Amino acid sequence: MVSTWSDKMLLLLRRMNNFYLPGSSLERCLPFKVEGEQVGWLSPKVASSTLSRFPAVFRPHGGAVSLAPSLDSYQKRSEAVDGVLQELREDETYACLKGWRHEKYEVMARYCDTPVMCMERAATSLFGIKRYGVHINGYTRNGNGGLSMWLARRSTTKQTYPGRLDNMAAGGLAAGCSVRQTLLKECEEEACIPASIAERARPVGTVSYTYEDDDGVFPESQFVFDLELPSDFKPQVGDGEVQAFYHYPIEKVKDLVASDEFKPNSAMVVLHFLIRHSIIEPDTEPYYHEFVTGLHKTL
Amino acid sequence: MVSTWSDKMLLLLRRMNNFYLPGSSLERCLPFKVEGEQVGWLSPKVASSTLSRFPAVFRPHGGAVSLAPSLDSYQKRSEAVDGVLQELREDETYACLKGWRHEKYEVMARYCDTPVMCMERAATSLFGIKRYGVHINGYTRNGNGGLSMWLARRSTTKQTYPGRLDNMAAGGLAAGCSVRQTLLKECEEEACIPASIAERARPVGTVSYTYEDDDGVFPESQFVFDLELPSDFKPQVGDGEVQAFYHYPIEKVKDLVASDEFKPNSAMVVLHFLIRHSIIEPDTEPYYHEFVTGLHKTL
Repeated sequence: MVSTWSDKMLLLLRRMNNFYLPGSSLERCLPFKVEGEQVGWLSPKVASSTLSRFPAVFRPHGGAVSLAPSLDSYQKRSEAVDGVLQELREDETYACLKGWRHEKYEVMARYCDTPVMCMERAATSLFGIKRYGVHINGYTRNGNGGLSMWLARRSTTKQTYPGRLDNMAAGGLAAGCSVRQTLLKECEEEACIPASIAERARPVGTVSYTYEDDDGVFPESQFVFDLELPSDFKPQVGDGEVQAFYHYPIEKVKDLVASDEFKPNSAMVVLHFLIRHSIIEPDTEPYYHEFVTGLHKTL
Repeated sequence: MVSTWSDKMLLLLRRMNNFYLPGSSLERCLPFKVEGEQVGWLSPKVASSTLSRFPAVFRPHGGAVSLAPSLDSYQKRSEAVDGVLQELREDETYACLKGWRHEKYEVMARYCDTPVMCMERAATSLFGIKRYGVHINGYTRNGNGGLSMWLARRSTTKQTYPGRLDNMAAGGLAAGCSVRQTLLKECEEEACIPASIAERARPVGTVSYTYEDDDGVFPESQFVFDLELPSDFKPQVGDGEVQAFYHYPIEKVKDLVASDEFKPNSAMVVLHFLIRHSIIEPDTEPYYHEFVTGLHKTL
């Protein structure tokens, strides 16, 4: 029976890394390769039933799927794959493509590599493409040294996790945008935080994990920032992705991240904050080690 | 040609995780199991040539090595294995046993598990036992908000990495000691920091890695603490494990960690500090992601 806070957080980390667990589709998935380097994972269904219908674009070989050799540039690859995705979008085989966002994500083997193509955000899970984002912990320091954190309640009309609690601001890294640009954009759009304040945000690491669900495989990494806000500053609802902001003592936030109310990957970002700010300690938290490694899986 | 700071740090992380690289002994190593759970790694030499000489203690089966079923308690296991180690120490097959320390480390599958036995520190690499320690970043905040860090120069008589630069204080987690107790002990013994100051140290995560060398396999995890020191406080040479302390601006420390002067795992602890304190940034450090994952390998 799962009951304690520690057990719940450990379960959350296991769920968010379920691609690595026994019984996942990992062993059946095929690497998706571009220029000889693996950039994603394809389920047997996507590889065999779907992509094999497009031999001018996709080429199976040696237990992997690559692109046709003629697709030898960023632009050619991006356009050819986008053409296939447009067809798939119409035949409605994959529910995730209904959430088409007109937002391109870069595709590369490692974040430090030059992108080899870009891909519509809604399709990345079908190809198991690594996705990167920015999450911002907004917090304040009380007079007595205690911490409070700003949380967002997601709009009920959001495609994913409607109505759940979330970090103060967050967003995916779209093609051509730097981490800092994304940070400033999301702070402004989601929480009406002016650049003069948002630029004080400090990068403090990344949180990385890989899960799978009906929509495919999600290897994700979030660049994490801490933004200490003046005590008289309040984030405001901006573009409608958020319906409300709450300002809670860190102990209440700690309780909330173990509840089903929280968006799971955002709960991981809060756990990372709790560890870095010494809210949990190695001698009293039995899974301290498991928490740190669960937050930092190699994609 | 390796030249930049970033390249040097990436190489350091690869070296400290060389057990996971192609060509390592990982594929040839046998799991060492106690009560059905893997607690270590045995090289073919240790498993086949050495431990097979002690059938009353070690039992090969199913591609792994376990202990004899009669060894059904913490004490029986610890004593039986210690008896074997004493014999091996005398026949001088393994150089690492010459560094016998009379210091016991706990053996368990995960840090959160109850230890199943203990083992002399100098022997743990022969069995690929996970080792835990505590590292303390001693630092000061300048008037202008900049940071400086205290570094230790290891004694030239240390068994490992004599004369190298190190974190202000550090030490292995001996059997029966808590993380906090180890922290206070090492601060006092190595740097003459009184408990009244050392207890202000704040836990900020762990750094985990696995390397192998001639002495065996080293899966290690260090509990990391930040200790902000008053500007007028100076650590002092204590038990002789350190020969000198230096107080350097963080940019100089950053340069030093990429040099061969630094003890490698301590350089990783400094890199973790540089990331958490925003000394390096994701938009300007190409290997930001690789650094974070290289610092947090699942043991």
